[in-house]
Amino acid sequence: MAEQQFASDNYAGICPEAFDAMQAANAGHAPAYGADSWTQAAADGFRRLFETDCEVFFVFNGTAANSLALASLCQSYHSVICADSAHIETDECGAPEFFSNGSKLLTAATEDGKLTPDIVRAIAGKRTDIHFPKPRAVTLTQATETGRVYTPDEIAAVSAVCRGAGLRLHMDGARFANACASLDASPAVLTWKAGVDVLCFGGTKNGMAVGEAVIFFDRRLAEDFDYRCKQAGQLASKMRYLSAPWVGMLESGAWLGNARHANDCARRLAQGIADVPDVSLAAPVEANGVFLNLPPAVQEGLRARGWQFYGFIGGASRFMFAWDSDPARVDALARDIRLCAMPAAA
Amino acid sequence: MAEQQFASDNYAGICPEAFDAMQAANAGHAPAYGADSWTQAAADGFRRLFETDCEVFFVFNGTAANSLALASLCQSYHSVICADSAHIETDECGAPEFFSNGSKLLTAATEDGKLTPDIVRAIAGKRTDIHFPKPRAVTLTQATETGRVYTPDEIAAVSAVCRGAGLRLHMDGARFANACASLDASPAVLTWKAGVDVLCFGGTKNGMAVGEAVIFFDRRLAEDFDYRCKQAGQLASKMRYLSAPWVGMLESGAWLGNARHANDCARRLAQGIADVPDVSLAAPVEANGVFLNLPPAVQEGLRARGWQFYGFIGGASRFMFAWDSDPARVDALARDIRLCAMPAAA
Amino acid sequence: MAEQQFASDNYAGICPEAFDAMQAANAGHAPAYGADSWTQAAADGFRRLFETDCEVFFVFNGTAANSLALASLCQSYHSVICADSAHIETDECGAPEFFSNGSKLLTAATEDGKLTPDIVRAIAGKRTDIHFPKPRAVTLTQATETGRVYTPDEIAAVSAVCRGAGLRLHMDGARFANACASLDASPAVLTWKAGVDVLCFGGTKNGMAVGEAVIFFDRRLAEDFDYRCKQAGQLASKMRYLSAPWVGMLESGAWLGNARHANDCARRLAQGIADVPDVSLAAPVEANGVFLNLPPAVQEGLRARGWQFYGFIGGASRFMFAWDSDPARVDALARDIRLCAMPAAA
Amino acid sequence: MAEQQFASDNYAGICPEAFDAMQAANAGHAPAYGADSWTQAAADGFRRLFETDCEVFFVFNGTAANSLALASLCQSYHSVICADSAHIETDECGAPEFFSNGSKLLTAATEDGKLTPDIVRAIAGKRTDIHFPKPRAVTLTQATETGRVYTPDEIAAVSAVCRGAGLRLHMDGARFANACASLDASPAVLTWKAGVDVLCFGGTKNGMAVGEAVIFFDRRLAEDFDYRCKQAGQLASKMRYLSAPWVGMLESGAWLGNARHANDCARRLAQGIADVPDVSLAAPVEANGVFLNLPPAVQEGLRARGWQFYGFIGGASRFMFAWDSDPARVDALARDIRLCAMPAAA
Repeated sequence: MAEQQFASDNYAGICPEAFDAMQAANAGHAPAYGADSWTQAAADGFRRLFETDCEVFFVFNGTAANSLALASLCQSYHSVICADSAHIETDECGAPEFFSNGSKLLTAATEDGKLTPDIVRAIAGKRTDIHFPKPRAVTLTQATETGRVYTPDEIAAVSAVCRGAGLRLHMDGARFANACASLDASPAVLTWKAGVDVLCFGGTKNGMAVGEAVIFFDRRLAEDFDYRCKQAGQLASKMRYLSAPWVGMLESGAWLGNARHANDCARRLAQGIADVPDVSLAAPVEANGVFLNLPPAVQEGLRARGWQFYGFIGGASRFMFAWDSDPARVDALARDIRLCAMPAAA
Repeated sequence: MAEQQFASDNYAGICPEAFDAMQAANAGHAPAYGADSWTQAAADGFRRLFETDCEVFFVFNGTAANSLALASLCQSYHSVICADSAHIETDECGAPEFFSNGSKLLTAATEDGKLTPDIVRAIAGKRTDIHFPKPRAVTLTQATETGRVYTPDEIAAVSAVCRGAGLRLHMDGARFANACASLDASPAVLTWKAGVDVLCFGGTKNGMAVGEAVIFFDRRLAEDFDYRCKQAGQLASKMRYLSAPWVGMLESGAWLGNARHANDCARRLAQGIADVPDVSLAAPVEANGVFLNLPPAVQEGLRARGWQFYGFIGGASRFMFAWDSDPARVDALARDIRLCAMPAAA
Repeated sequence: MAEQQFASDNYAGICPEAFDAMQAANAGHAPAYGADSWTQAAADGFRRLFETDCEVFFVFNGTAANSLALASLCQSYHSVICADSAHIETDECGAPEFFSNGSKLLTAATEDGKLTPDIVRAIAGKRTDIHFPKPRAVTLTQATETGRVYTPDEIAAVSAVCRGAGLRLHMDGARFANACASLDASPAVLTWKAGVDVLCFGGTKNGMAVGEAVIFFDRRLAEDFDYRCKQAGQLASKMRYLSAPWVGMLESGAWLGNARHANDCARRLAQGIADVPDVSLAAPVEANGVFLNLPPAVQEGLRARGWQFYGFIGGASRFMFAWDSDPARVDALARDIRLCAMPAAA
Repeated sequence: MAEQQFASDNYAGICPEAFDAMQAANAGHAPAYGADSWTQAAADGFRRLFETDCEVFFVFNGTAANSLALASLCQSYHSVICADSAHIETDECGAPEFFSNGSKLLTAATEDGKLTPDIVRAIAGKRTDIHFPKPRAVTLTQATETGRVYTPDEIAAVSAVCRGAGLRLHMDGARFANACASLDASPAVLTWKAGVDVLCFGGTKNGMAVGEAVIFFDRRLAEDFDYRCKQAGQLASKMRYLSAPWVGMLESGAWLGNARHANDCARRLAQGIADVPDVSLAAPVEANGVFLNLPPAVQEGLRARGWQFYGFIGGASRFMFAWDSDPARVDALARDIRLCAMPAAA
């Protein structure tokens, strides 16, 4: 097997807690389409985790989770306010527009992908004529594509603007667990208590194979969402294989432990290269990613030594960590960065 | 664990060959979005199985597989000819219309869900004005919803009509393996050699958790299909968990063995009740389902004894068998049908 | 100019009242997109005509009017109950499915295209699982494609079923004026007083060039409908040319006079051939169309004499009359039918 | 009647040549849906005007014309490159995304809305992975929203990039006639001879009530476009009222004369205020619009004197001229601008 790379946090496999639950679920027959006991248990687990009677749906991946959730908040002639670096804008191949049959994404230039009340207010108020799609939803990415997190207060401040402007608040939580771990905040505090209407809670990057949870805190917004999932090809017949892993993750606490480990690895790398000259952080390390400004020679050197990584927004080099990232390998990366940046010191 | 029921063939779990492959795939890291070696191996496996250089895509479920494949053959103002009992018409909640942005399904009354050349010709020629969606595709369900199979000759005959009328031929193969087993025909003979353009090969009902293969025999039809999957929320980031099980199924031959077993169970039931008075087959048993005309009292009696089953098209009672159906339990069902139908004989 | 034919009621041109208003509106400049005084006057005219404070929108044609109205009542995973001969099913090329992004039409076999409470109840109750699109709207065609009308009581009876089943009631009124004239009933009595939620009031077949009115009796259903029209390419910049003709039609009463004349012509033909042997009405004549069972020889004879007409649902020959149909020409048609059917009598 | 304003060029009515043709067309009956002689004549007129055997369709308005044309070039997972000030991006309420079921618009910062080969090349080459919609079309607005025109060479240069990159070239010609007049170039030279695949030729701003022509120079691209129009609610039953005005415009040369007059009025205003201190052109005057940088006090003064105008892109004040703009009124505007800017001089 090749040595671990940190190019993406979805190169990692299924964590033991998720795998074991899937294996346990694979005993005999079970009713299809979510009528099984594992799915019930997973939904109940989320209700306990979020300390509220939310409505929970399981879909296959994040593209679908976000797109379906946003489509449920909008009509085709409405629009969604998002950061210009948001995944739904940059990396979902027009999925939100497809699922909603045309809802436009209104993008805002942001620092590290974080929307602010001022930004939301400005975009929401810019056009009020029928020649432009009416804003109806705001989406926050928690953590952002560049590894920043929203504090509960920041979320609440955006939510307040939303309430005043007739906008619903959606959270793309592909790395929601990493945000919880980073802020040491409860899922409830980071969502409905701060005014989030719908959360897409990512399982894949957290250690599962497939399966994201779409969580409606306002149950009225979930009306007929099961039909929406079915029509959009997102209702699994053997649902237990999407839900059982969540049971394993939630009951064991692996959802949080995995995220903590990944965040720790990111911080470990950041600390390991803190004093390397000519290498700097492109963004503060708050979740499981490290974005580095690396001189071209250093990038070349790293690639020559076999490291894979993406050039990212604004030219930074991205390193992402997962539930199973090996600290020794993180240290090796830090060492190689140092070596490439300070060849004389070698 | 509750006793096996035969209400649906997707109540069954993951078969050992698929599970083991998934477990084997769960070792360390792998590139995302299908760039991994398992996905390559699965696609190559299909090319070997079908004896042709087909283009292969893996999506999450059958709803998506069929809808995406049909959408790739049509524009929104085109239409698709199908049997009125076809799954895409009766049980996918409008998914084909959604993915295609409006392509209409033109349904035909059929015997056991089987389209014939005459039926296709009649529907294709019925309307040729722009006030009605132009037919562009025909879809065959192999095996049909009532367990009938199309022979290679029957497929070729429909295909010939398609060629003449500018129609593409799609096959919904949710139970394609059962048809192969039933006819003892090779996958190639039942598809491209008979004129099928696109096949959706079902994995779920064959013993997997998720994952259907969309197979284009005319590679030009597959242009940009990867973009289509991505936009529609059907591109798995950890693709290996969809593809590895196929490797296990294809290499071991379980894809065919599972189907044979399920078909055998269906025949076993049919034979077990062949001489029971007042009980008759609503359709010949050619795949893994048995459709019985049961007097109301027999239905009641069976339910009272704990048997679950669906009333189906035309009022027949449906019993479906899977890769793990227990012959002893099939016999128990046959016995109970006999008992309920002939109480005096008990 | 060729002699009048009765193949379609949209072969006729613009009636004087509509044309004069359009000419009057063509004086100087006017604000765009419906902010002009003609549009205000037309909307107010409809509110007076319907004796209620309805919300009124003007779109280009009937395909768009019906499709947009239905889309506003449904989500893509919902369905619409209609007669199998309804125009939205048979002659709009999948427009309802396109505008709604996939809402399925659930068609019912009917007598002359008229839905009944029993039919609606049966279809609405047939499927209640998420594998089938949830019924959310019913559409009545007034008058139907075969020239039948719904009485206020019949509409109210269907509406009562709708209320009980969570369904909205839409009326395709491409020939609404003909129904009003036929029943001598007020627009209010035939719509909101009988429980209709949305009416598409046809202008084209009533004597205009373009322009149908979409009338919401429950104003809440009209929320953001202006955005919907704009996005769907149905907001005219020079709106006055769609609305002014309506002002002319409503103020002069031509909307009703035109319909009466067309209906009279239909009855005139029916009476003129009532005693012709082997020729019979395929449907009672209640609006502006006559549907005749004509022996093949009679059809041939008529065509030989230069008459154009469509073979229609069930094989009947259709003759449609408009605001400017010439009674002398109607008589000529009656005479020719008689001659063709009774050659010996000639 | 209120005095002429120059806030928009669609405040003007129908010019005599268009109106007279519509009146002439309003004689007796005519076949529906474009099978009439006026529609044939209009299409032939365009073929003569463009000196090529193009395929011509008539739709109701510009929103639909552009959206349908672009949808015919793209699938939902494709994208369209346009200027960030393009009408399809800023003022069509998401119509292109709706008609295409999700095709994304990739906007470029431009000078006065003009795309260049470099810009197109940069955007087309930016992303080539399946996580981002694949570019398939480029759209040029002729003249642009700020009244600039593309020369034949400029168009050809963009087209060359398109050919090399597998992109189709669309032209939004809502003010195409103004560009022809401005450049004194033939329609052929400005379109297919320079590599344009599809043109939407605007009638409304040119002096008609409704009706834009969609012109395909590559006839293969027009396959089934009639079905597309029908399904999208853009097929007029009484088509002659959309096509006859075009006959009047083309035969009389009014299409060009109207545009010349409007352009002249724009230049007249520009010349009239050329020497006014503190007032400058925000963009060169090349078509029928004048965009002025006006000090706030001048703007206020003008409004106080009853002038209406829009603040536009970048804060400029927009004045648009039409086929019937009154030169005396243009002079009055110039005078008032001068007075407001030089109160002491009054």
